[in-house]
Amino acid sequence: MPSASRPYSSPAAVIDSDAMDSAAPAVTVESINPKVLGCEYAVLGEIVSHSQRLQHELQNKPGFHPFNEILYFNVGNPQSLGQKAITFFREVLVLCDHPPLLDKSETRALFSGDAIARARHILDVIPGRTTGAYSDSLGVKGLRDAVAAGIASRDGFPANPDDIFLTDGATPAVHIIMQLLIRSEKDGILCPIPQYPLYSASIFLHGGSLVPYYLDESTGWGLEIAELKKQLDEARSKGITVRALVVINPGNPTGQVLAKENQKQIVDFCKSEGLVLLADEVYQDNVYVDDKKFNSFKKIARSMGYEDADLLLVSIQSVSKGYYGECGKRGGYMEVTGFSDEVKEQIRKVATVNLCFSNISGQILVSLVMNPPKIGDESYESFNAEKQGILSSLARRAKVYHHSIIITSLLSRFCVRLCWFIIQALEDAFNGLEGVTCNKAEGAMYLFPRLHLPQKAIEAAKVINSAPDVFYARRLLDATGIVVVPGSGFGQVPGTWHIRCTILPQEEKIPGIISRLHAFHEAFMQQFRD
Amino acid sequence: MPSASRPYSSPAAVIDSDAMDSAAPAVTVESINPKVLGCEYAVLGEIVSHSQRLQHELQNKPGFHPFNEILYFNVGNPQSLGQKAITFFREVLVLCDHPPLLDKSETRALFSGDAIARARHILDVIPGRTTGAYSDSLGVKGLRDAVAAGIASRDGFPANPDDIFLTDGATPAVHIIMQLLIRSEKDGILCPIPQYPLYSASIFLHGGSLVPYYLDESTGWGLEIAELKKQLDEARSKGITVRALVVINPGNPTGQVLAKENQKQIVDFCKSEGLVLLADEVYQDNVYVDDKKFNSFKKIARSMGYEDADLLLVSIQSVSKGYYGECGKRGGYMEVTGFSDEVKEQIRKVATVNLCFSNISGQILVSLVMNPPKIGDESYESFNAEKQGILSSLARRAKVYHHSIIITSLLSRFCVRLCWFIIQALEDAFNGLEGVTCNKAEGAMYLFPRLHLPQKAIEAAKVINSAPDVFYARRLLDATGIVVVPGSGFGQVPGTWHIRCTILPQEEKIPGIISRLHAFHEAFMQQFRD
Repeated sequence: MPSASRPYSSPAAVIDSDAMDSAAPAVTVESINPKVLGCEYAVLGEIVSHSQRLQHELQNKPGFHPFNEILYFNVGNPQSLGQKAITFFREVLVLCDHPPLLDKSETRALFSGDAIARARHILDVIPGRTTGAYSDSLGVKGLRDAVAAGIASRDGFPANPDDIFLTDGATPAVHIIMQLLIRSEKDGILCPIPQYPLYSASIFLHGGSLVPYYLDESTGWGLEIAELKKQLDEARSKGITVRALVVINPGNPTGQVLAKENQKQIVDFCKSEGLVLLADEVYQDNVYVDDKKFNSFKKIARSMGYEDADLLLVSIQSVSKGYYGECGKRGGYMEVTGFSDEVKEQIRKVATVNLCFSNISGQILVSLVMNPPKIGDESYESFNAEKQGILSSLARRAKVYHHSIIITSLLSRFCVRLCWFIIQALEDAFNGLEGVTCNKAEGAMYLFPRLHLPQKAIEAAKVINSAPDVFYARRLLDATGIVVVPGSGFGQVPGTWHIRCTILPQEEKIPGIISRLHAFHEAFMQQFRD
Repeated sequence: MPSASRPYSSPAAVIDSDAMDSAAPAVTVESINPKVLGCEYAVLGEIVSHSQRLQHELQNKPGFHPFNEILYFNVGNPQSLGQKAITFFREVLVLCDHPPLLDKSETRALFSGDAIARARHILDVIPGRTTGAYSDSLGVKGLRDAVAAGIASRDGFPANPDDIFLTDGATPAVHIIMQLLIRSEKDGILCPIPQYPLYSASIFLHGGSLVPYYLDESTGWGLEIAELKKQLDEARSKGITVRALVVINPGNPTGQVLAKENQKQIVDFCKSEGLVLLADEVYQDNVYVDDKKFNSFKKIARSMGYEDADLLLVSIQSVSKGYYGECGKRGGYMEVTGFSDEVKEQIRKVATVNLCFSNISGQILVSLVMNPPKIGDESYESFNAEKQGILSSLARRAKVYHHSIIITSLLSRFCVRLCWFIIQALEDAFNGLEGVTCNKAEGAMYLFPRLHLPQKAIEAAKVINSAPDVFYARRLLDATGIVVVPGSGFGQVPGTWHIRCTILPQEEKIPGIISRLHAFHEAFMQQFRD
């Protein structure tokens, strides 16, 4: 037995203070990490908890509520709302998971030839030829090669496989970068408001400061460099070292797609201010308007003549979004450019410690998403039909809001946005109601309509210590079973109130949803009209 | 645009100090989070980095090294070393991932009937009937039910599905608990030394203090309550609030299996001292000696008459170990008992924020691991043959060390432990060498032999600023291509030196490995003999 001198050279802190005896308290919410307690994650906040209670009651007390199902509009979770997985992707995953199938005669009848060939190729590049082994902590080299090739093909500029970290979706990538950059609350991260609340939660958990910049709702959630500069300067004047700028493009929850010129300004801003550009590009395959196109920030930077060393850029992609919508598979990558090898080694270490390794099926899937079947491949036509079917349906659902804006103009109303082909029928009914304004969804999977709530509703919310948008969302849920996320969770200009809802519910369900929303909204405004 | 008063109510810190201007520095190792920089994770440390360089050189400079392959003994990664996945488990995963197979006539020829039935049952309990959707943040309810049923069947005491959190392996579970409990460096976690370095890394990253307790090598890595009490009291006298006790059973890297009486003492210790018992039980299916049996701490506590509220207990299990060895799938659970609903809600939140959700295939797999085919099921015989084949092979590999100890007694030597059937032949050859002592591997997947190194070797290590065990491991790698982990990474009694290596390499490879080890060890001792 060793002496009491605690000789183990652990890197964990060993305290030598002579403080008072401190017997361990029971574990209560008062005695847990306050960063955990204080962390908020609105996408799964109180409205969702309440919806789960209602779900339980629906099963146990049929007829107790004025609806018979909970409709989850809160999360971008396509397959839970009826979207089918892409067949080619699943065929390859399955063949990689169970290689004995490759040698069976029946397999050719069940799987496409190019899926079989792709699976064989993938198994060839996985050490041990199995999806059951830990990979290198960056991910399987051959799969990183494939992702890099897919990026190069998308952008027209080369990508280096050693810059690719395969991750279990976008979330771990964000945490890794926050953990790397944030040393204390004096380190700040510029974040859009509204933002996807993973960013505020991660910054908070890692002990940093969120430096907000506001998107301009009046210009379709425009991102203005003057606003960035103003907030950066203000944060610096308060002693905050701003380390990174988060840009979500296409926007979540705001749905805008950045214009190329705007992206160039952002690149120059980050370069001149020495900021890491953390580009959340998980909706890169979700663009619904003809006049906008997704351009990665890496492509923009390279097209401006900037090389690797000119810009600290992290681009994040996930298999959970796009037409693939494989949320349950947990796959994604981050492409990390402009960082030194030493820093990349630290990223690798923290990725390893945090996550152990990312799951191999997710790694395979992200390699497929970045390299789908091409024209001439046996699966191409069926693959493309599935893909276009999903995207055009999403585009229709996004467009109804767009058209409704044009048609209903300032009379635009939330419910109206939900179905183009019944706009005319609804318009008269809505004509006397207070408005709900909503920018068009150019991309991503969400609407973020603004609620102009009556003062009485705002006061009623205050009485129960609730934000007005939470109050509205809770009432909506209780009356209709529809789950949306209050805008408070994403941040919004003070005094404005929003809700976020996905455009994912299947088209045939939309008329029923509209009628529920309409009835609710009318009754709500009736009750609280000033 | 909002005013400059930063009205967004983010929970992230907003600093109001009037400190100096602080332009963002470039991202260098000097400017990243020192917790990231200082964190060590020996299982993938400098020896592994060096092995990857060697691997690269083997490909690009054939003949440059005195070996032609790198042998990874460092990680418990069974399938990378040739172990096959269990067929039944993979069949079910594949059918769940690609449900159209269930309707095809060819499928019955390719898959067992009970795998088909199990897959149908699992799809019935997954919302949306797809592995492509996010689940509830605890995991799919029906799969948690299955895990709870498996635990109840294992222990003979009930398990509550609401206590089960499905996770992407054991690693995220450990981080979640550390993140929950650690508020500052004044919070301490009692950890065994030697320990699996995930614990030291996680405690360090979350800013806590590792409070070491030493396992007693001379009694087969015994865990003594007096040692726990001594270290606890000493930590408390220094102002540290000790919040949890980590116990790894079967032990990693030490391979011991705790006796029931010892476990009872540990339970009573945690109860009386108010500590969370964090039971790492990922090697529960890896016990190789007839006189020991795995008993979960929950079973022990319940058998002592303690109910849920009597003990704060977290039990961690993973699909990566056992006879299944599905490291690449990332599946696991933690069973959290004795905590209030309010605290469990906080665990749920931090799980959600940290991980988004765990992958569905991993969730399915852990439900299968806890509920494998039973006698009478169509797959049972082939399943059991695969399982027993793997376990008996592992037991043979573990036992050779055991037998060798009996046979060679104090003359026991590292190489000797590697193959029982050639012990006699080797014994004479080793007789004149300095000893390597090694406790028997009762369970888990590792040996942790102690190296009695000559003073000259220790001094040679010092010259290059290396720990003696790291020096030995590096020399071993350079000479033979064999990768082991130096004991320093796990912690050890000062002045003692060890290495950890897995027992996983396939049996047919062992003679070659022994001869490499033998030659290396002899030459090393020759060079440095005092």
